Amino acid sequence: MSLAIVNARLDGRRVTLRAEGGVIARVGPRVKPRESDEVIDAGGKALVPGLVNGHTHAAMTLFRGHGADLPLMDWLQKVIWPVEARLEAEDVYWGTRLACVEMIRTGTVRFWDMYWHPGATARAVEDAGLRATISAPLVDLGDAASDTKIHEQAEQGLEEVGEARELVQPALGPHSIYTVSEPALRWIAEAAAERELPVQIHISETEEEVVRCVADHGVRPAEYLHRTGILGPRTLLAHGVWLDEDELALIAAQGATVVTNPAANLKLAVGRVFPYRSARRHGVHVGLGTDGAGSNNSLDLFQDLKILALLQKHEARDAAVLPAPEAWAVATGALSPLLGGTTELERGAPADFLLLQADGPELAVGDFAAGLVYAASGAVVDTTVVNGKVLMREGIVPAAAEVVAKVRARCRRLGLA
Amino acid sequence: MSLAIVNARLDGRRVTLRAEGGVIARVGPRVKPRESDEVIDAGGKALVPGLVNGHTHAAMTLFRGHGADLPLMDWLQKVIWPVEARLEAEDVYWGTRLACVEMIRTGTVRFWDMYWHPGATARAVEDAGLRATISAPLVDLGDAASDTKIHEQAEQGLEEVGEARELVQPALGPHSIYTVSEPALRWIAEAAAERELPVQIHISETEEEVVRCVADHGVRPAEYLHRTGILGPRTLLAHGVWLDEDELALIAAQGATVVTNPAANLKLAVGRVFPYRSARRHGVHVGLGTDGAGSNNSLDLFQDLKILALLQKHEARDAAVLPAPEAWAVATGALSPLLGGTTELERGAPADFLLLQADGPELAVGDFAAGLVYAASGAVVDTTVVNGKVLMREGIVPAAAEVVAKVRARCRRLGLA
Repeated sequence: MSLAIVNARLDGRRVTLRAEGGVIARVGPRVKPRESDEVIDAGGKALVPGLVNGHTHAAMTLFRGHGADLPLMDWLQKVIWPVEARLEAEDVYWGTRLACVEMIRTGTVRFWDMYWHPGATARAVEDAGLRATISAPLVDLGDAASDTKIHEQAEQGLEEVGEARELVQPALGPHSIYTVSEPALRWIAEAAAERELPVQIHISETEEEVVRCVADHGVRPAEYLHRTGILGPRTLLAHGVWLDEDELALIAAQGATVVTNPAANLKLAVGRVFPYRSARRHGVHVGLGTDGAGSNNSLDLFQDLKILALLQKHEARDAAVLPAPEAWAVATGALSPLLGGTTELERGAPADFLLLQADGPELAVGDFAAGLVYAASGAVVDTTVVNGKVLMREGIVPAAAEVVAKVRARCRRLGLA
Repeated sequence: MSLAIVNARLDGRRVTLRAEGGVIARVGPRVKPRESDEVIDAGGKALVPGLVNGHTHAAMTLFRGHGADLPLMDWLQKVIWPVEARLEAEDVYWGTRLACVEMIRTGTVRFWDMYWHPGATARAVEDAGLRATISAPLVDLGDAASDTKIHEQAEQGLEEVGEARELVQPALGPHSIYTVSEPALRWIAEAAAERELPVQIHISETEEEVVRCVADHGVRPAEYLHRTGILGPRTLLAHGVWLDEDELALIAAQGATVVTNPAANLKLAVGRVFPYRSARRHGVHVGLGTDGAGSNNSLDLFQDLKILALLQKHEARDAAVLPAPEAWAVATGALSPLLGGTTELERGAPADFLLLQADGPELAVGDFAAGLVYAASGAVVDTTVVNGKVLMREGIVPAAAEVVAKVRARCRRLGLA
């Protein structure tokens, strides 16, 4: 299967992009479509790489808008956990499909997910056509001797997700340092190294986590994680709001990636803004995430992109901080080798890209990068292509209505509708 | 001309809304369309009031993305002012038309505008079909004896805008306390009282403004404004970031409205968040604005609505602050008699409303108000009706392409494209 996008605007030029076998075969002003190509005329549209959502819990679209204005612990204990106890794989499948519809509509081409029934997530991702790195949340509540053995959970999760393949990458997902015991973290570090698996973990989302870590372990969270062997270039740290300078230096030295979730952090009122500038000064790889729809509540990464840039300017009291091209790079995953994104569409790269309405009010005039970051929302996305397959054209995701109907039925079953 | 919206969801019921002569004639589950009605089937769509953008400079869509990451004074002096010196009425007309396209698409039904060539703004607003309160920016740079006499500017602006009528309300727009002299402010206060005109003014956007006001006048900005007679129930104060408790009490006592512009304040890094909770505790009327597209850069008020709520939670370190229904009320103008908005669609109210895609991923499940505030963007707006006239259906604003082409031509003329 091959695809040709003709008449697209790219960096001020009119180009054709050809994709074959899921990768970009050629791109340039003199490229011609071939007879066998599916051809899309991109007149009036701009060609850009897709966005990478570095941290979410996709199936939590099921819980969107429930307990929306509750503090974190109330929200978890009173709303989320009682429902999660009733959750079936089919719920996760359809919740993830709904998340995929929203991500496709708003320009996300790959995401990192941590949630129950990861096999259902993997199935949903492949059916939707997106890419994802998927793990079960691993939790022993700090008790290595508990019945819910981490290594059994891990093996089951990996088996559910299956081997790494075109669209799906399995990973290990220790939930956090306060829900996973130290021996379990050490086991995860070893298993990840041995099998070359990515690891994703929440870290330093709240100040309380830091205070407890220092009290329990005598060091701050990143130092503690490093002691367990988990920090490395395949490690994704979600949130990192309360990381200090020494921790950022350590994370940079270990080559790990921090994914910031500015909207979710504001919404749950965690009390601090991710120290993006310090992180970059130390050389930390950085990505952007929405977090789950339960705590954002949108999966439109364009909105988080704007919030990221605005919040850093505000914190620094300097409007020049985190200029548009850099913010765009964060959202495309280009500032982290682990996230594997790019700001450039080049021969040999995965055929994951978007066509944007360049003639709409948001992007019609002025600097393009500034338009993407400050003026756009996911609404500017006209066409989404992943792995050389067209998942959306002219704003239409074919499966959307069916997915919404299924999700409503699942929500009724869960007592949520 | 009459309109009937059938099968719309409103507060969990299926209703018909009939509009006649620009007002809502009837709304309810048993209302029937009449023979002469233009009928819209709103199956799968939710009926909500339109949003009120309480502060913008609509024609600044022309400058969108120019100097996007510059500090405020650099941005004004190096980018905006040199271009504004070349601005013609036709530029303002088309810039405002572009703003109207974006506002119609994203659910804003009325706005407050302060910009040069206000007659062109009024013409654009009426051609687009939106409602606006419009003023010229009045500026004498603190010199009451200057050639640019405020009363002459005011009279010219009022003459350009014309009498109050269906869609257009003229107003007086002293730019700020640091660009308008005290005698001029007094003259404006008297003229506004005499002619029953609204007044809009920027206040306390930056800390420097407060420091200078105290140094020059011995009091803080709201107290100084009160001394000139300007504070009253027809007065709209834009920004108000640095207002203190005493000023908020004074503003509440005088019945004035403060319009907060959270995205623009973050983007220009003014260093503080509008004290929304204090303002409401004192009983201040509050509204929401985007500010101009030059300093936001979006006119999608749904995004500012989310930023408003998230930022207040963050500042208070309390996720329960500014819950969704209250945030929605702010954005519809319902927390200010001056803004004239409403959260309820009732018989006799202006026929200004929206149909939202209630079956899309953003609003399909969960609490509706939470969906509007946290999950939606302007992309959920399917149909926009103002004064009983359908300005957009199924996301299509008929004039959009023509307007974009004209704006591009005007930008080229201004050396901006």
